[in-house]
Amino acid sequence: MERLELIALQQFPLVEPGDDLAALLAESLQANGLALRNGDVLVIAQKVISKAENRYVLLCDVDVSEQARALASDAGKDPRLAQLILDESREVLRVRPGVVIVEHRNGYVHANAGIDRSNIQSDPDNPRVLLLPEDADRSARTLRERLHTLTGCAPQIIVNDSFGRAWRNGTVGVAIGTAGLQPLRNQIGERDLFGNVLEVTEPAVADELAAAASLVMGQSDEGCPVVLARGLRIAASDNGFGALLRDRQLDMFR
Amino acid sequence: MERLELIALQQFPLVEPGDDLAALLAESLQANGLALRNGDVLVIAQKVISKAENRYVLLCDVDVSEQARALASDAGKDPRLAQLILDESREVLRVRPGVVIVEHRNGYVHANAGIDRSNIQSDPDNPRVLLLPEDADRSARTLRERLHTLTGCAPQIIVNDSFGRAWRNGTVGVAIGTAGLQPLRNQIGERDLFGNVLEVTEPAVADELAAAASLVMGQSDEGCPVVLARGLRIAASDNGFGALLRDRQLDMFR
Repeated sequence: MERLELIALQQFPLVEPGDDLAALLAESLQANGLALRNGDVLVIAQKVISKAENRYVLLCDVDVSEQARALASDAGKDPRLAQLILDESREVLRVRPGVVIVEHRNGYVHANAGIDRSNIQSDPDNPRVLLLPEDADRSARTLRERLHTLTGCAPQIIVNDSFGRAWRNGTVGVAIGTAGLQPLRNQIGERDLFGNVLEVTEPAVADELAAAASLVMGQSDEGCPVVLARGLRIAASDNGFGALLRDRQLDMFR
Repeated sequence: MERLELIALQQFPLVEPGDDLAALLAESLQANGLALRNGDVLVIAQKVISKAENRYVLLCDVDVSEQARALASDAGKDPRLAQLILDESREVLRVRPGVVIVEHRNGYVHANAGIDRSNIQSDPDNPRVLLLPEDADRSARTLRERLHTLTGCAPQIIVNDSFGRAWRNGTVGVAIGTAGLQPLRNQIGERDLFGNVLEVTEPAVADELAAAASLVMGQSDEGCPVVLARGLRIAASDNGFGALLRDRQLDMFR
């Protein structure tokens, strides 16, 4: 493992609800002069998947509960947005003006249940927001299978999003769904250069690659929402990203 | 920003206390057929810097305080190691069997003050451990200046280490010192594709690149402790990594 290349697909089209994202990916790869190879990983920004899956919600369609009203008041947010954050979450961990830290339905701990308004064409008189994919592992798996059918090659897939962190400023790309790869590299029992048995260090390779791809996506990520990563060999697995989630009982920062 | 290449320098020599790391870097780049270019970033594993700076401590030289004895008992650690963890930290945040979460002298929150025994040649009868660099920003700055003198080019530098995270399993590469670059990309006030002013999202580019490099370093990182990253344009800055540290008062997870 010596050289990793991260190539942002240029001129990726704006994605609309109902679009066949796998077909768009296959076309874009071709237009960029790239043919998929074994071992390739495609990192795809959550937003384009959410759009293809029509995860838009018009705020005018949201009924606001008492709980959401209270949360909105504590967080200084639109009550309808607070309702959607609650609907998308299992638990609220922290509330501060401007930010609500939750455990999302799918298990990740992050801000505002991943709901945002950036890079969304929205009618100012009738605003809408975009939720995360219903099940990003399933989205990744479906893309992988369709790409296999379309191109003869089944790339490993990572769906990424930008998360804030405890203790550190700034956001980093994080894997919220995967297909075809082991998100943690298990090294327990391996030996280091000097023959010492390594302590438990399991690099979260899917998160590291999600972060690496985020660097070349830039922020206006509708422009470059897809990155081809070439040169790694990540172990295969039929499970999704779940191994990245720390068990609640083992978590010291709830 | 379309294509990022991460190249792990092959055959990097084992580093010993007192070695001229900048000279080793310049030689290794040449041996790998690589000439530094403007915009290149070198990501360097903390361990080789600590070794060059002789941050080894023999456990037999450590005097153990009462506080360290108590910590060792709570954490199930060697009391001498517990003492070093305390010496290297400003504050202990959490203690569980096997792990002590601290705020390091230099501000990062992580496990065990970054002290470990892996990839260290140690006499089993007289074990030693390796501390983090005294000031990784200073180490990075010095390397950058020396490389400029030796090669005529001053690459941006990131010193990385592997950190665990709250809420997620596995470790990721993280920046613990930088030189010549802005660790956060400030996008406040930028507009997205549709003209909406972006909310406060500042990608932690130094951490994302530290993570990306970690992917190609592998774990036996004494083998590939240096990665050349080529193809990004990270804004210049004379400050170090400090902008990545969240202010204590703003931190919700202390």
